[in-house]
This record gives sequence, structure tokens and C-alpha cells, in this order.
Amino acid sequence: MVALEQKIVKEGKIYDGDILKVDSFLNHRIDVEFLNEIGREFYSLYKDNGVNKILTIEASGIGVACVAALNFDPIVPVVFAKKSASKNISGDVYTSQVFSYTHGRTYDVMVAKEHLTANDRILIIDDFLAKGAALEALVDICEQAGAEVVGVGIVIEKAYQGGGSRLRAEGIRIESLARIGSMGTDGNLEFV
Amino acid sequence: MVALEQKIVKEGKIYDGDILKVDSFLNHRIDVEFLNEIGREFYSLYKDNGVNKILTIEASGIGVACVAALNFDPIVPVVFAKKSASKNISGDVYTSQVFSYTHGRTYDVMVAKEHLTANDRILIIDDFLAKGAALEALVDICEQAGAEVVGVGIVIEKAYQGGGSRLRAEGIRIESLARIGSMGTDGNLEFV
Repeated sequence: MVALEQKIVKEGKIYDGDILKVDSFLNHRIDVEFLNEIGREFYSLYKDNGVNKILTIEASGIGVACVAALNFDPIVPVVFAKKSASKNISGDVYTSQVFSYTHGRTYDVMVAKEHLTANDRILIIDDFLAKGAALEALVDICEQAGAEVVGVGIVIEKAYQGGGSRLRAEGIRIESLARIGSMGTDGNLEFV
Repeated sequence: MVALEQKIVKEGKIYDGDILKVDSFLNHRIDVEFLNEIGREFYSLYKDNGVNKILTIEASGIGVACVAALNFDPIVPVVFAKKSASKNISGDVYTSQVFSYTHGRTYDVMVAKEHLTANDRILIIDDFLAKGAALEALVDICEQAGAEVVGVGIVIEKAYQGGGSRLRAEGIRIESLARIGSMGTDGNLEFV
């Protein structure tokens, strides 16, 4: 998506530790008008696949998922997986574990069983895909529920981190609207 | 908003500790089509007030705020305040403290200075209003930035907890789409 690549180049900030901040339109301030274009793009990619629910993960995924859901015809509901400490997990949930490279710790992801079923055709949406740990947990939760993962919609994929390649090799359809091939703290950024 | 009251009665679950769970349409599964009606209502209440930005707080507020923003004409951006441990606060942010009665601890709320300015006319949107601690922090952050709080849009207010009355007495316009006057674990729930 050319407009997205341009926006990343113009507004993104690269920091030490392989961090790309897009706080001006995605992760802190949300450019909702632009997000609407992103949502329209996800609908266009998945409109023939019988998606009946969008699954995402708190917090940054929620805005993208809700705006995408509004672009579907008919509008679909969103379920957002919750992150929580292990001790807070109660009985009637599907859970999976994610190792966060950003925070250096493992956390649980959970979805209540009543909100994910074997009748669901799921589009997973998230803002970023890097090593793929969070995405893998969401796919795992869908498998536990017997729900079908129709595909994945990602706003920004750091392709060089390998998560996308690994999951595509497992047969999962992943559509990323911008794929970064390399990134340096000198501000140099190349798309795949 | 009658449709919202009906939905709370039909789908809400009341638990010990004064907890109202509306996980089926607002806090875990998001009924995006219904949220769109809520967003339309917020626009109708605030359309003549020159709102140029919506401020909310992660995580549950984000969906409501984004869908409301899409209903504005023109569409406005959303900024979501981040919750974080004190040690993670860096220099260029406005911060305020919130005591969470749910979790029994104090946390910081922060907004980067570049995303909130003295030129902003802010509509604060959140899913719940109870004792008003989070809302007070968001108002405080707007005051630090010199931004004008045009008003507040709340989906569900627990009116009997007093936060809304206290903040209205300070002159803040608060529009709550459902106002709960009393609630018991016997499932009894009355609106104001």
C-alpha cells in the first residue's frame, strides 16, 4: 500500500534496538481517516472469504480491527485477546503464551470460550508483525476453539525478522500492507 | 440511549464487588455495528462544538473512540493515553496519576506532548465512568497541555459511584449514554 509506505517514511522514527515508532498515526495518535483506508484495503483483500469475526490483541490492534470491521459488508464483530498475568486466568478461556522480545518476558494471552467457536471464520488483524510470537498465540487460540483462520491482516511487517515467512510456510495467508526489508538507525528504511 | 440500556439488561452480567461485565459487546467482544450507533450518538451530541481530536485511554476506550471519530464530519484523530509503570515515563510527556479501585494500585497515565496542544478542542471518550479517577487524569493532562475539554462522552456511567456528579459540579460537560442508578448481584439494575 503505497500511501502507507509513504507515511512510514515521512512520520516513522527509528530507534536503537530495532524499534520503529509510528506514534503519529498508529500507536498513540491514531489517524482514523487513514486507518479507514487501511480497513478498506483489508476488506478488499478478504471480502470473498466469508469472514464472520475479526480477532486482534490489546491495545494497539483494537483501533485497526474496529475500523476494518466497519468496512466489512456486513459489519463483523471484533474480539480482542487480553494480556494478563498467569494468576488471573480463569476457567472458561483459551490461553496461549507469548514471549515479548520488547519487554523481555512471557505473558499470557486469553480469549473467553464463549466468544470464539468452531463456527467462526476468523480474520486476525494486528498493527505489527515481527518475530510472530503474538500472531502464533492468536492462531493457537483459534485452533483450540476449532475456529478457522481465514487469514491475517497486518499493517506493518518487519519482514527481515522472519515471523511472517515462518507462518506463511505453515500455510497461513498473511497480507501485510507494508513490508520492511531492512531498517537502520541512520533512518534508512527499505521496503520489500 | 434506549437500545444501549436494553443491551446492558440483556447481555450484562453483574458480579460481586460491584462489577458489571459487558464483555459480549464492549470489553472483550466488540459489537462494532452497535458501537457505530454509539459513535453516531456522540457525534450528534458534540457536532456543534468544534471538536478536533478525541482523547481516550487504553485499552477498552480505543474501539469506542475510533468508531466515534469515524462518525465525525470531518473525521477527527484519536489519541489514546498510555498506562505505564512510573519508571517508564520519559521526558516529553504529560503524566497524571490514577488510583485504580479495580486493581488496588496507582498507575501513571501519559500522553506525548507533541500529540496534545493548546490548539486542541478535545472530546474525551471512555467506555465506563465510575468514581472518575481515570477521567480526572485525562482532564488534568488536557489542562497541562492548555487544551480545551469540550466535553466527555461515556458509554456506561455508574451514576451511584459519584464520579460523574463530582466532575459535572466542576463544570465539565459529561454525556453518558446509559446511567446506572443502582445495581445488585441479584441481577437487579436500574437506570437513572
